[in-house]
Amino acid sequence: MAGEVEPGRVRPGGRTARVREAVLRAAQDVLAEHGFAGLDLADLARRADVGKTTVYRRWGSVPGLVADLVVDMAERSVPRVETGSLLGDLRANARLVRCTLTDPRQGELFKALIVAAACDGKAAEALRHFYDIRVGEWAPCVDQAVERGEVPAGTDAFEVVRAVSAPLYYRLLVGGGPLDEAAADRAAEAAVAAARAGAYVRRGV
Amino acid sequence: MAGEVEPGRVRPGGRTARVREAVLRAAQDVLAEHGFAGLDLADLARRADVGKTTVYRRWGSVPGLVADLVVDMAERSVPRVETGSLLGDLRANARLVRCTLTDPRQGELFKALIVAAACDGKAAEALRHFYDIRVGEWAPCVDQAVERGEVPAGTDAFEVVRAVSAPLYYRLLVGGGPLDEAAADRAAEAAVAAARAGAYVRRGV
Repeated sequence: MAGEVEPGRVRPGGRTARVREAVLRAAQDVLAEHGFAGLDLADLARRADVGKTTVYRRWGSVPGLVADLVVDMAERSVPRVETGSLLGDLRANARLVRCTLTDPRQGELFKALIVAAACDGKAAEALRHFYDIRVGEWAPCVDQAVERGEVPAGTDAFEVVRAVSAPLYYRLLVGGGPLDEAAADRAAEAAVAAARAGAYVRRGV
Repeated sequence: MAGEVEPGRVRPGGRTARVREAVLRAAQDVLAEHGFAGLDLADLARRADVGKTTVYRRWGSVPGLVADLVVDMAERSVPRVETGSLLGDLRANARLVRCTLTDPRQGELFKALIVAAACDGKAAEALRHFYDIRVGEWAPCVDQAVERGEVPAGTDAFEVVRAVSAPLYYRLLVGGGPLDEAAADRAAEAAVAAARAGAYVRRGV
């Protein structure tokens, strides 16, 4: 095939990495524009100017490629904000989630990834792993709040961070009103109030 | 077409209603087994033993049919439980939502409907309408709690009921742990704690 970039076994950051980057970028474009149903390995190879056989050999299937895309996204860390209070920290987190989900490109991408996960076990596993990493990046703000005595000892930090995201994903996928900054702030306030009342303390430990 | 049931303009409960019931039941079967991507109008006509032209004339497209399916589901009301306390009422609601989402058939159906809504504006509008009705059926338990003085005046009843569902849909679609009864009870407890603290009081009214 003319113009094909053959990855081979080269050092990281070399041709293999460039092929991966080009194909994953093309996949993000297609997901954002046409959703999960628009993904096709042969079309991605064309868009990325990479040989079809290379793409089939490396990713095998559309769900396999989506899983790798999610791994790539998980590797790009977003720095956590530290404001000195749990409400301030979680409000920053809620606003960040809200910005991602309402961004025209990123919002469609996340919707498409959740659709992919609902349709395919491999994509679902990759997405769960991605969120474990993202949630884990923010969990320390809850542990710090426990140390400061803001919330009870034994509070499940991951559950609190997920509680901030849940109403925002609900608005994105199910409904109930616009994904505005007021919704983000309310999500943070509700999570803090419930955490203070002990709703996220681990049971039966 | 042999064996075709032609709806025509007959009284409700007659042939038109039977055709609708047969096609929507077939659509539920396909959604639960194969998801949104498995829906095809010609295949549904075959499964329901209804003429293809009848199905195309009545629903026009797969999203149109999904929208009608959601309307049909909204018409089947689930009775609200009254326990005398907001926590008791919302725990009953959370357990009901959890049972629906973990039921092998219903869970796949709801996942497929949310996927349909993520992919199509008409299906999204129908799903939003469906949830407005369902949430509205449970909202009075929050208004009663306001009257009993359990939560502050001005509490947005719809927001509280949605807050109970949000972490359960998050577990279904995004992740974070099993959709067990403990997760349902925690969702209810967190919503009540946040409501008591005033997190769902309407702002700027």
